[in-house]
Amino acid sequence: MLKIGIIGAGRIGRVHGESITKYVKEAQIKAIADPFLNEDQKKWAKEKGIPCVYTDYKKILEDSEIDAVLICSSTDTHSKISIEAIKAHKHVFCEKPIDHDLSKIKEVIETLKENPGVKYQVGFNRRYDHNFRAVKQAVIDGKVGKPQILKITSRDPEPPSIDYVKVSGGIFLDMTIHDFDMVRYLMDSEVVEVYAAGNVLVDDAIGEAGDIDTAIITLKLESGAMAVIDNSRKSVYGYDQRAEVFGSKGQVAISNDSDSSAVISTKDGVTGEKPMFFFLQRYMQAYAEEIREFVDAIVNDKDTPVNAYDGLKPVLIGLAAKKSLKENRPVKISEIKY
Amino acid sequence: MLKIGIIGAGRIGRVHGESITKYVKEAQIKAIADPFLNEDQKKWAKEKGIPCVYTDYKKILEDSEIDAVLICSSTDTHSKISIEAIKAHKHVFCEKPIDHDLSKIKEVIETLKENPGVKYQVGFNRRYDHNFRAVKQAVIDGKVGKPQILKITSRDPEPPSIDYVKVSGGIFLDMTIHDFDMVRYLMDSEVVEVYAAGNVLVDDAIGEAGDIDTAIITLKLESGAMAVIDNSRKSVYGYDQRAEVFGSKGQVAISNDSDSSAVISTKDGVTGEKPMFFFLQRYMQAYAEEIREFVDAIVNDKDTPVNAYDGLKPVLIGLAAKKSLKENRPVKISEIKY
Amino acid sequence: MLKIGIIGAGRIGRVHGESITKYVKEAQIKAIADPFLNEDQKKWAKEKGIPCVYTDYKKILEDSEIDAVLICSSTDTHSKISIEAIKAHKHVFCEKPIDHDLSKIKEVIETLKENPGVKYQVGFNRRYDHNFRAVKQAVIDGKVGKPQILKITSRDPEPPSIDYVKVSGGIFLDMTIHDFDMVRYLMDSEVVEVYAAGNVLVDDAIGEAGDIDTAIITLKLESGAMAVIDNSRKSVYGYDQRAEVFGSKGQVAISNDSDSSAVISTKDGVTGEKPMFFFLQRYMQAYAEEIREFVDAIVNDKDTPVNAYDGLKPVLIGLAAKKSLKENRPVKISEIKY
Amino acid sequence: MLKIGIIGAGRIGRVHGESITKYVKEAQIKAIADPFLNEDQKKWAKEKGIPCVYTDYKKILEDSEIDAVLICSSTDTHSKISIEAIKAHKHVFCEKPIDHDLSKIKEVIETLKENPGVKYQVGFNRRYDHNFRAVKQAVIDGKVGKPQILKITSRDPEPPSIDYVKVSGGIFLDMTIHDFDMVRYLMDSEVVEVYAAGNVLVDDAIGEAGDIDTAIITLKLESGAMAVIDNSRKSVYGYDQRAEVFGSKGQVAISNDSDSSAVISTKDGVTGEKPMFFFLQRYMQAYAEEIREFVDAIVNDKDTPVNAYDGLKPVLIGLAAKKSLKENRPVKISEIKY
Repeated sequence: MLKIGIIGAGRIGRVHGESITKYVKEAQIKAIADPFLNEDQKKWAKEKGIPCVYTDYKKILEDSEIDAVLICSSTDTHSKISIEAIKAHKHVFCEKPIDHDLSKIKEVIETLKENPGVKYQVGFNRRYDHNFRAVKQAVIDGKVGKPQILKITSRDPEPPSIDYVKVSGGIFLDMTIHDFDMVRYLMDSEVVEVYAAGNVLVDDAIGEAGDIDTAIITLKLESGAMAVIDNSRKSVYGYDQRAEVFGSKGQVAISNDSDSSAVISTKDGVTGEKPMFFFLQRYMQAYAEEIREFVDAIVNDKDTPVNAYDGLKPVLIGLAAKKSLKENRPVKISEIKY
Repeated sequence: MLKIGIIGAGRIGRVHGESITKYVKEAQIKAIADPFLNEDQKKWAKEKGIPCVYTDYKKILEDSEIDAVLICSSTDTHSKISIEAIKAHKHVFCEKPIDHDLSKIKEVIETLKENPGVKYQVGFNRRYDHNFRAVKQAVIDGKVGKPQILKITSRDPEPPSIDYVKVSGGIFLDMTIHDFDMVRYLMDSEVVEVYAAGNVLVDDAIGEAGDIDTAIITLKLESGAMAVIDNSRKSVYGYDQRAEVFGSKGQVAISNDSDSSAVISTKDGVTGEKPMFFFLQRYMQAYAEEIREFVDAIVNDKDTPVNAYDGLKPVLIGLAAKKSLKENRPVKISEIKY
Repeated sequence: MLKIGIIGAGRIGRVHGESITKYVKEAQIKAIADPFLNEDQKKWAKEKGIPCVYTDYKKILEDSEIDAVLICSSTDTHSKISIEAIKAHKHVFCEKPIDHDLSKIKEVIETLKENPGVKYQVGFNRRYDHNFRAVKQAVIDGKVGKPQILKITSRDPEPPSIDYVKVSGGIFLDMTIHDFDMVRYLMDSEVVEVYAAGNVLVDDAIGEAGDIDTAIITLKLESGAMAVIDNSRKSVYGYDQRAEVFGSKGQVAISNDSDSSAVISTKDGVTGEKPMFFFLQRYMQAYAEEIREFVDAIVNDKDTPVNAYDGLKPVLIGLAAKKSLKENRPVKISEIKY
Repeated sequence: MLKIGIIGAGRIGRVHGESITKYVKEAQIKAIADPFLNEDQKKWAKEKGIPCVYTDYKKILEDSEIDAVLICSSTDTHSKISIEAIKAHKHVFCEKPIDHDLSKIKEVIETLKENPGVKYQVGFNRRYDHNFRAVKQAVIDGKVGKPQILKITSRDPEPPSIDYVKVSGGIFLDMTIHDFDMVRYLMDSEVVEVYAAGNVLVDDAIGEAGDIDTAIITLKLESGAMAVIDNSRKSVYGYDQRAEVFGSKGQVAISNDSDSSAVISTKDGVTGEKPMFFFLQRYMQAYAEEIREFVDAIVNDKDTPVNAYDGLKPVLIGLAAKKSLKENRPVKISEIKY
């Protein structure tokens, strides 16, 4: 039985906690740590039968019984805790992104090289979603032939708080980073150049915080194929998560998930349900699946499906997109110094 | 160039007139007759370049230049004019139903036997619709294997006037008759027994006129397969025309046509367009196609695709359905004396 | 913490066991009993942390710590064990149907009257499905106005074994019984008359076992509305579970659930995924929800959402359907002696 | 009765000829001219009842009875004949594009200024399509709020001949020009900057002819909104013509038209029909509608719905896209000297 420690008892930390309890029978949670632990979180830990509850995550790293940690703390601590955990010989599942600072990601990768037995996985949950997986499978199966165009629509139902925007690293590193990962995942080819167009169309306060809320990003891939992503921070009809891959033999496309298939026809039209609104609801099964695969990689000594290199690449693309937006020109990934 | 006379200048007569003018290059309309011809109808005839406009349809039957007639007059005159036209050696396209009275349909069929060169076609337009044809084609192509269940939903957007209801022959002979034809067409098997359940749920006045407005009809076919039709006289969201054939290898289903494929997503839901509301709009191309095939049958001396026998059968089924509803029991078609 | 005993360690017993473990935090399984307990089942019980494993269910009834039992044994034992459990003051969740024999259902109901504190729930899982619930909600919310027509399509992916068919009570009591429950649930009106048409179109062996495999059932309701169900024992494209309610203000319809929304367009067509094939997969969440509601009814002393009376009614309708099929005539529910 | 002359008896010339004959009752075709008139074309003209058939289009311009001309000749003659026709006081419907050379478009516009009574319309047929019109209407009605993102997918079923590619002006002026028009039409805002990414992924011969066959074009609009177009010269599943406008209150999206709504479910999946393959079939009604509106503008002295300025703008955008592709940088429309 694999013993797990969760670092960070916020929303995503508890989501993973629930997943392990419900779906991952080879693992159990031994400890959870959060510097700002409140009563609700303590109560939750008790209900889940988690024996150790700490404010200091170092207690988890010091516990020799614990095999693996989930780093679900704030983004600015991801790389630091990753490095400490790797050095403590804990397998690491780290929420995305590893860091906004490439030198710190480099340090994580170096530390992993020095500790070859440690498994490291980055939390790009969308890879485990039933819809995106079906796209990937169709591509692998040759259903669309040679991929030529990838289109991703990724729109949040509501913008985050302005306080969050300020520390988010900008839309490309916070939100589009998932889409950049999807480009690599679905097309199985590296991005070589990015052009990002963006604007502030949702909320002026986002602009004042130095960010944009609406973007169209074009990516050229090594294979010669191209990809385009469109993002918005506010989609009033819900979390809009679609993708299509077009190729020499056809196309595969996915649409949104809804709460039910009910369609109501009246004199006013034929109305179906909106896409699910909340990302945790939409990707609930994907969150469970990624943890299951992390545990499986450890238990069966496999490669993790999303490694540190997969964590690095979307950050590089995101930094190139930022540069592209600022300088209003296509930017090669090779221009980003790593 | 085939010369055609139209008997009846009402809505459907002019629909066929438009179709011939636009789509049927082997035919031209020489005459139109209607006892109650108004100024609009005269003006319409002039615009279409129809040389002869009569109040008495007999003038059409007497015109030796005219090859074929379309009988678009009121239902109670269909069989009488059919017989006269056949005797005058005109090919006949007759709107459905030939008659509510089986003895009169019998007389039409007898007259046709005495005039073997005359082509006779009944106006079951739905056979020419792109959707229903696609169902038929899938069945013929063996896509669904051996057909086992046919489901037809057929709902009018609005009930006819009570005056019309009174002379309509009842819902089964007026409205369901199209569905009975579809059962025979799509399943390629004759109906042997009918059970009809019905009620007055839309408008009490329909009940007072001795009819029903909502029905579910189950049909057993010679092949062993079964069919079920559901009807309503009032579907607020439009003309609902669907069918599905289920069989040993799968199912083929058709849905409604709309004015556009536009789908609007807002905070209130994901809304597409309603089905087309009006039967003439919905079946416009089918009306053109049936006339084209009638002309083709004459010009190229083929069998008409919907002959007098095909006109008789749905009336038999309709009469069995009426009897079933009245006696609340399944009724064999063979019980209906012909 | 509610303590539960599961009687019957077959497929459905273990499904409920999984649900309780994962989703129902107010309950825990104390015991499981099955006369034919195999090694896999024992192993499963161990993994789930079930302390007591018996071959004799009476040990569960005798355990004063156990508050509630789930009766998941073979159908012919449902009523007997129900009565014993009620007398032992255990709350009972009983799989459908309570019995094929009305006198035994009557005895269960009598025993419940004598033990008013005991909660009794019947396993009509479909009431908890997200799609069927959405239909119900739309009806409650008045979106379709006054319901006039209900259509249910319910087709199994594969017929059961002939051995099972022989003891199943026939298609109406085994399979359609769920649809009869849906008629009552969705239309909120009692069935007064049934007409069943059926045939053997899938497998002659089913006919030789005295049953049919394809059916169309028309139901008249107290409200004046009508319902129609079509069933097949073999739908090659998967488990086909659809419903639509049509009324004075519109229609609500649900379609099938699939593994993903992926649609592949090639030169051969535009192809989406099949409906889920297996009922346990399709209704997994519904199975969890029904147990959650059962536990909730006990813990918070509410009425169970599907009581013994709700268990009785579909059996009455099923027996009327059997009689209708045999005598080929509509049969009133009041003709079935209870 | 408006008298029309058609210049060019190729495919599109005859499409317009059919439309006028069938749908435009206020107009008749008096003459058709084509330097390479073949027997089929002569036969067609006879069938349509066109009295005058010429090889020299000047005979049409000299005929004082003719009110309007349709310029359906090869692209390199559009501006020259336009100017001659305007000077001859004929109303002009000119197929797109007016010219690839801006100075010639300028000359057409100058000539129009000198002949203010002459109506001039450019053949952007897509504006009259039921689906694109529904998008426009939803935007006008405020259904999507303030438009923020427009996505257009426009993919041809098959590339044109290499001979045609060589004289086509390149994909942006030949194919994307329709999409550029759609951007202006749907968003009601002018394009200020274009970034075009493109590649040769379909056929190397297209690259050798100096063109690309796959493109993603990002456009910034005056309003602050953005648009993205993706093009391919070869979509094996048919003519793929979709658009969606996303805004502050929601989204409107259109999908492709098919021959029927038939969906076949088998063990292999749930398969619907492909999009219509051929542009003339897909936009048949739109071609008729644009001619009807042209005639209406003349007969009722209205502005034409797509004037010379609307013909100029997409060419400017197309030239900017060409420059962007060549220089791999975003190009402002104002950089294109007009």
